[in-house]
Amino acid sequence: MSGINITGQKHLVLVSGRAHPQLAADIAAELGSELIPTDARTFANGEIYARFDESVRGCDAFVIQSHTSPINEWLMEQLIMVDALKRASAKRITVVSPFYPYARQDKKGRGREPISARLVADLYKAAGADRIMSVDLHAAQIQGFFDGPVDHLFAMPVLLEHFQSKLDPATLTVVSPDMGRVRVADIWSDKLGVPLAIIHKRRDPLVPNQVSVHEIVGEVNGRVCLLVDDLIDTGRTIVKAAEALKAAGAIGVVVAATHAVFSDPATQILQSDAVDEVVVTDTLPVPEEKRFDKLTILPIAPLLAQAIDAVFNDESVTSMFDGAA
Amino acid sequence: MSGINITGQKHLVLVSGRAHPQLAADIAAELGSELIPTDARTFANGEIYARFDESVRGCDAFVIQSHTSPINEWLMEQLIMVDALKRASAKRITVVSPFYPYARQDKKGRGREPISARLVADLYKAAGADRIMSVDLHAAQIQGFFDGPVDHLFAMPVLLEHFQSKLDPATLTVVSPDMGRVRVADIWSDKLGVPLAIIHKRRDPLVPNQVSVHEIVGEVNGRVCLLVDDLIDTGRTIVKAAEALKAAGAIGVVVAATHAVFSDPATQILQSDAVDEVVVTDTLPVPEEKRFDKLTILPIAPLLAQAIDAVFNDESVTSMFDGAA
Amino acid sequence: MSGINITGQKHLVLVSGRAHPQLAADIAAELGSELIPTDARTFANGEIYARFDESVRGCDAFVIQSHTSPINEWLMEQLIMVDALKRASAKRITVVSPFYPYARQDKKGRGREPISARLVADLYKAAGADRIMSVDLHAAQIQGFFDGPVDHLFAMPVLLEHFQSKLDPATLTVVSPDMGRVRVADIWSDKLGVPLAIIHKRRDPLVPNQVSVHEIVGEVNGRVCLLVDDLIDTGRTIVKAAEALKAAGAIGVVVAATHAVFSDPATQILQSDAVDEVVVTDTLPVPEEKRFDKLTILPIAPLLAQAIDAVFNDESVTSMFDGAA
Amino acid sequence: MSGINITGQKHLVLVSGRAHPQLAADIAAELGSELIPTDARTFANGEIYARFDESVRGCDAFVIQSHTSPINEWLMEQLIMVDALKRASAKRITVVSPFYPYARQDKKGRGREPISARLVADLYKAAGADRIMSVDLHAAQIQGFFDGPVDHLFAMPVLLEHFQSKLDPATLTVVSPDMGRVRVADIWSDKLGVPLAIIHKRRDPLVPNQVSVHEIVGEVNGRVCLLVDDLIDTGRTIVKAAEALKAAGAIGVVVAATHAVFSDPATQILQSDAVDEVVVTDTLPVPEEKRFDKLTILPIAPLLAQAIDAVFNDESVTSMFDGAA
Amino acid sequence: MSGINITGQKHLVLVSGRAHPQLAADIAAELGSELIPTDARTFANGEIYARFDESVRGCDAFVIQSHTSPINEWLMEQLIMVDALKRASAKRITVVSPFYPYARQDKKGRGREPISARLVADLYKAAGADRIMSVDLHAAQIQGFFDGPVDHLFAMPVLLEHFQSKLDPATLTVVSPDMGRVRVADIWSDKLGVPLAIIHKRRDPLVPNQVSVHEIVGEVNGRVCLLVDDLIDTGRTIVKAAEALKAAGAIGVVVAATHAVFSDPATQILQSDAVDEVVVTDTLPVPEEKRFDKLTILPIAPLLAQAIDAVFNDESVTSMFDGAA
Amino acid sequence: MSGINITGQKHLVLVSGRAHPQLAADIAAELGSELIPTDARTFANGEIYARFDESVRGCDAFVIQSHTSPINEWLMEQLIMVDALKRASAKRITVVSPFYPYARQDKKGRGREPISARLVADLYKAAGADRIMSVDLHAAQIQGFFDGPVDHLFAMPVLLEHFQSKLDPATLTVVSPDMGRVRVADIWSDKLGVPLAIIHKRRDPLVPNQVSVHEIVGEVNGRVCLLVDDLIDTGRTIVKAAEALKAAGAIGVVVAATHAVFSDPATQILQSDAVDEVVVTDTLPVPEEKRFDKLTILPIAPLLAQAIDAVFNDESVTSMFDGAA
Repeated sequence: MSGINITGQKHLVLVSGRAHPQLAADIAAELGSELIPTDARTFANGEIYARFDESVRGCDAFVIQSHTSPINEWLMEQLIMVDALKRASAKRITVVSPFYPYARQDKKGRGREPISARLVADLYKAAGADRIMSVDLHAAQIQGFFDGPVDHLFAMPVLLEHFQSKLDPATLTVVSPDMGRVRVADIWSDKLGVPLAIIHKRRDPLVPNQVSVHEIVGEVNGRVCLLVDDLIDTGRTIVKAAEALKAAGAIGVVVAATHAVFSDPATQILQSDAVDEVVVTDTLPVPEEKRFDKLTILPIAPLLAQAIDAVFNDESVTSMFDGAA
Repeated sequence: MSGINITGQKHLVLVSGRAHPQLAADIAAELGSELIPTDARTFANGEIYARFDESVRGCDAFVIQSHTSPINEWLMEQLIMVDALKRASAKRITVVSPFYPYARQDKKGRGREPISARLVADLYKAAGADRIMSVDLHAAQIQGFFDGPVDHLFAMPVLLEHFQSKLDPATLTVVSPDMGRVRVADIWSDKLGVPLAIIHKRRDPLVPNQVSVHEIVGEVNGRVCLLVDDLIDTGRTIVKAAEALKAAGAIGVVVAATHAVFSDPATQILQSDAVDEVVVTDTLPVPEEKRFDKLTILPIAPLLAQAIDAVFNDESVTSMFDGAA
Repeated sequence: MSGINITGQKHLVLVSGRAHPQLAADIAAELGSELIPTDARTFANGEIYARFDESVRGCDAFVIQSHTSPINEWLMEQLIMVDALKRASAKRITVVSPFYPYARQDKKGRGREPISARLVADLYKAAGADRIMSVDLHAAQIQGFFDGPVDHLFAMPVLLEHFQSKLDPATLTVVSPDMGRVRVADIWSDKLGVPLAIIHKRRDPLVPNQVSVHEIVGEVNGRVCLLVDDLIDTGRTIVKAAEALKAAGAIGVVVAATHAVFSDPATQILQSDAVDEVVVTDTLPVPEEKRFDKLTILPIAPLLAQAIDAVFNDESVTSMFDGAA
Repeated sequence: MSGINITGQKHLVLVSGRAHPQLAADIAAELGSELIPTDARTFANGEIYARFDESVRGCDAFVIQSHTSPINEWLMEQLIMVDALKRASAKRITVVSPFYPYARQDKKGRGREPISARLVADLYKAAGADRIMSVDLHAAQIQGFFDGPVDHLFAMPVLLEHFQSKLDPATLTVVSPDMGRVRVADIWSDKLGVPLAIIHKRRDPLVPNQVSVHEIVGEVNGRVCLLVDDLIDTGRTIVKAAEALKAAGAIGVVVAATHAVFSDPATQILQSDAVDEVVVTDTLPVPEEKRFDKLTILPIAPLLAQAIDAVFNDESVTSMFDGAA
Repeated sequence: MSGINITGQKHLVLVSGRAHPQLAADIAAELGSELIPTDARTFANGEIYARFDESVRGCDAFVIQSHTSPINEWLMEQLIMVDALKRASAKRITVVSPFYPYARQDKKGRGREPISARLVADLYKAAGADRIMSVDLHAAQIQGFFDGPVDHLFAMPVLLEHFQSKLDPATLTVVSPDMGRVRVADIWSDKLGVPLAIIHKRRDPLVPNQVSVHEIVGEVNGRVCLLVDDLIDTGRTIVKAAEALKAAGAIGVVVAATHAVFSDPATQILQSDAVDEVVVTDTLPVPEEKRFDKLTILPIAPLLAQAIDAVFNDESVTSMFDGAA
Repeated sequence: MSGINITGQKHLVLVSGRAHPQLAADIAAELGSELIPTDARTFANGEIYARFDESVRGCDAFVIQSHTSPINEWLMEQLIMVDALKRASAKRITVVSPFYPYARQDKKGRGREPISARLVADLYKAAGADRIMSVDLHAAQIQGFFDGPVDHLFAMPVLLEHFQSKLDPATLTVVSPDMGRVRVADIWSDKLGVPLAIIHKRRDPLVPNQVSVHEIVGEVNGRVCLLVDDLIDTGRTIVKAAEALKAAGAIGVVVAATHAVFSDPATQILQSDAVDEVVVTDTLPVPEEKRFDKLTILPIAPLLAQAIDAVFNDESVTSMFDGAA
């Protein structure tokens, strides 16, 4: 046959946005590799620029970004990096977004609303992303927003390991902070083999003007309550829930969440006496000034590194969780 | 200016598949119109053929199909009709699928599963559909699976109107048959101003090998329970729930669901003494042999006709539900 | 360069739908491999589910399905499997459809008809198929319906080999059963070096109301006639042709066709005395109850396996047929 | 409602390439309209430029081009005009290509061939065409190459009308010049109620090295033969067929074809004594120097104008042919 | 014909992002209409939300946004609004971006750079925009980045009108501040009928390490210099140019630019003695604290309103500029 | 794992159109390979046909074509070859178009013009091209017209090397022949460390009716002028520029351009006494009859071969130019 033949090679390349450099560095270290040197800048008028200092031709690129505030900046930076990789002949581009941006806008609650979580999937596609990797999507259906493979990882094994030695199943109850998160709490309760309780926010029929009460469905008196959620934003929901639990006789309230969004004034609110411990992962950066005594931050890099390694080597990511999903 | 000018016209055309001719006829009657005469057939080897007997050029076409069993036949028939409309120069094609096919396969529960609800959206798009109209999607996120407008209608007003005069709020409790449907039950409870209860299926810790118990979270003793769900398939879940409620002291159990899938042996199961009434709509056909004494079927055609009329006349569909969603 | 380098690997994976497990098993055996274990099921309401039990990341997947009745079920199952493969990060997906579904709906005969054969190509594409492999397309133009590579295989070598020793060229005539299949018969006549005859269905000018007569164009008196077609559906056309040939003095009528659609009452009709032998391949399953004495079924698996092997190894498929097309 | 409301208007605009200005002018005249003034030029290095002198915003544009030699120039000019219309906000763009370019390359006859007829459909789509209008496609399947509406017109009524008064059914036979055109001849024979004959080119078994003989299947002795084809290119096939018919006793040979490709030396060849008349339409321009005494050219503009009018007014094009297709 | 017919209506709807409400209000006022009431918000974690308070079904929507700093926020807000319009069944969506975001990143200057101006076009498309309207694109080629109509407006008539009465052609020279803007200056010089000069930045061959000198090509001694550019960012380039002109004997330096990006410390820099007047339009908002004595801001709303009106009414936008482009 | 595993291979394949066989042969020779044997023909009616004589499955194909006159023929031939490669399962297809066709139509100068350079990018994409390789694009923004990687090569190093020994920097001035090419001349002037001059065409204010004068901006008296442009078409612009330079006292005029379009009567015009040497590359073929004494043609094949080699081996193309762009 005419032409030239050579043996094929696969090149793994790690790219990072500027939102959470520590996480990207940790992932690279876990993989025994390094990030590709990148010149990423914001110009005076707010436009972002990015350029890679080494060739990325034919590579299997993973573009790590953490969607903390200012979230639109970091999303746009990631899209620009994907565009640059596409035009530089990268072979395959995987967007690594541990906290999927706009995940809570996953449906039209009312007419004339956007579905921004789908829009984000479309923007990734338009920029040139072939795949997405994310952790604990707000709704599992978001996987279906992207026309391509989505590696959906679960932080539960990381969080569970932390609690395993600390909490006694005999007195533990898993609590969902509202109706929307019941499914997740259900899985935790199943996994730990402990009872479930649910907090039900309702308009108080006795007080006009939308004052809501926190009804607790299930037994919490004399129990240690593990409040589980996918994320903590301002912390208001979770602290109100903790207060209601304590008021109902709970002897302890521990909070577990994957994504520490921690919008102001989360740090202040979460230091409430009603909360005994808050455990999160570092899918989002938690700057020093937002940390507090009761807060434990578990590293997510080992999980992401293991998944990137499996993807690069065509090995199963599912088997990392056998049964956890 | 060179050329020819005329005033623009809009033509509404109603097309129906063969799955549920009564529903299509009812919609046409509500609109004061008729269905376009269509030759739809299944050949000896199972291939489907469809042809319209009148011109559909430039029309605003609505392709009504009801996705009852054999569901793949009816989906394929609808896709073929959309293809025929596209090639016959229809201006806009809206797929009217009151019961969205494969809605329950809306996420990857485990690795290497399909997301068939997204696939269905992609197939509609590939065939040429511009829009989708559906009723009570299993998950609201399915709206985001389609790259275009989705008119998501709610049967709750239809169902509520039926119950309004019949049930006494003072003794009524809304019940979710499992963890996955809590959000819908929550809306009903809010709308009716009555308490909520939830049924929680768990592995029985005392009995090995996955025997599950039905824990009831909330008060049902001495109450009339309104079990609400989006669909009833074999009826097993709902009847187990009803039995658990009666065992817990409920003085009545009424079931409300939008979609009467009624896979065998639903008719037999639903006639259980634990269930006092079953109320559904006719988004899916319920043949004579599947009907039973306690069953009430409410017509969905007025709702669909009103929505089609609003879409055709560029009027708000949202306002049909003000606040209901 | 930053990053990690490894040598590239290629993985062949065989996936099979449930329509014709024997054919899939035969192909795997020919390749010295096995099918990937798959959980494929039909739920109570007719929805299909499929999941692969092993990782398919980065693989070169071939999804074998046989489009026998109920054809829409098997098409949908195949589409669902393609979706699952796409979302599971398969590298390349080839749809293996030996009998292309809806191949006879390849054009608009009249206004407002679908072109379902094109629709099928679009559905494959929408689901995520990169390539198609098929045998003896009803019209070669169907290759152009798909935006990508189509491996079009020919069963003629398989069928010819069967006849080579059995039929005497000196007394043989190849016959086209109608005007639409003349091109195929022409190739056979050329290949075997024997004369051609054509059956021409016409309205009988002497009898009103669309009674048709079978005019034979060419010499068949005292000859053994080999009727060739791409498929046999109900068998009516082919048996009428055989009867006309016998009436015109043919001393034998042998039928060769690639696809044994065999819609009822094909088995009964084909046992006509006018037909001496029917030879088909197993692109479609022929269940025991549809078999009969004069029927010979030749295995198509060797051909498909050879083509899959060539595709996987980047070798020429064309060279398998040198000159046969 | 906020905003501004006005009544919608529809504007028909006719655009013409430079290949066959007479045809475009005739169509405009039939419609009682005029072509939009256009500046179309070829630069020194062969690049084409086109610009419209009047606004085309919101218009329903029909881009008329005739694909005569140099066919690639005219195709490219048409694509450029479509691009200009798209960028100038035309509302809908219909490509009017009476003779579809590259129609004979509609399948892969061998491996590694293009399917150029599909490529042309893709190029039209890429440039921005919404619809195609064409006359007598070489294969009806080409309709399926375009992802959108194709108005497939038939010249048969035009040609038939010409012959109706001239030829006597009693002595007439319709003849297909080769195996590939049998279907078209079959329709003519049916329409005229006269017998059919077919010319079968075969390798002469008595003479080595691929010398072919023209076998005539059917009766032609003492008959007037009407040779029908979709196009005449160099004329060699048709004249060889005519000679064979005359040699077999035909008392007259008349040729009817839609598209007068007339590549050199068609004009010279067609003046053979074996041919008594050649009747074509002007889908392609026939310059003075290519015309000859026995040639009749029928105008196709009325048919195209009627179809454009129907498309613009959302009326049925199918009904123009009732039963003709 | 079956179905319902009504006369078509066109609805113009104006939507505005939050970046520059005054401009949107001015455009609406010019059109004698109002903006559609919109609920646009930024959540605590930086995610943006938008919803329209009135139906937009079937409307011709114009989404006005001004891409000032923080530019990524405003771009994302506009994309979200487009998504919401698309899903709410708007008929046509035009993005009105007077200052095209990322326009200066219109090519790869070096390897592995993004082409962010193309990316922005792709993001608009992915969100659902059908058309773009912009003013004075940094490079005219950006029109070609979008697959659809781009209405490219020119502010020159607005700016020219301001200068016409003020500056004396006899002593005026148009100056390009650098090599990249020569084409624009050329058009101004042509339009005003006055000479052209160019400033050429070069590395000083006498001083090492990239110190650049401003060479002036053309006569400026004793002339009033009109420095023209499409935008003023930090103002450094323009002030350096002004200083060089004054040093070369210019008796006055007036600056004209369409887009007042005014990144810090532009306001401070532009108050240099070398600059006598700065004239811009309000395509971008100039907050009070960025204004200064020598600054004149001309309203761009009349131009945009006229263009929107023309687009809505299918009238020529080109004719607004006859010859100006 | 089920299935078959083998080591991946990469195959480079070189394909050539018929426009400039020498260039393709030179590239193959530089790479130590050969072109794939191809049957490319033009039929009597102008339609082009192409077929490859060897398998191209899984290959990395480079389709070399030179867009000389008749440019539309060669563009169409290249598109057909891309289609054939796509359908023959080539893995990756790179269009190698050293002179990008229609590059000068890169924007809408006026309303209702096409952007043909974008159209060409769309046609390449529609046919199946994954990547583009080109030399000295007329505008660098054309890279952004293609949705994928564009390898933009620069001939400057090739041309510079030729001049390095011949021209004395002390007396050399780089000259831009018009305003549109100033950026390129600026880079040359920077690279050579010599002054820049610009030719400014203006309407002569003293003579009515658009007579233009060539104003020279910068010092050329007593200097050797190096006129640089990306292409020479008819040569009129460049020779007028040379004459103006000589009239202004230039002691020598040397012309350097990448693309020798040489439309008639370029050869005649360029032999003007005002021009002392013309240096071009062979991106376009220059037939014997178009060559003349003062013409030097430098080979571009080494540059293209080096880039193809880098692309095939996933090595940096950027590094070939370090700093040249």
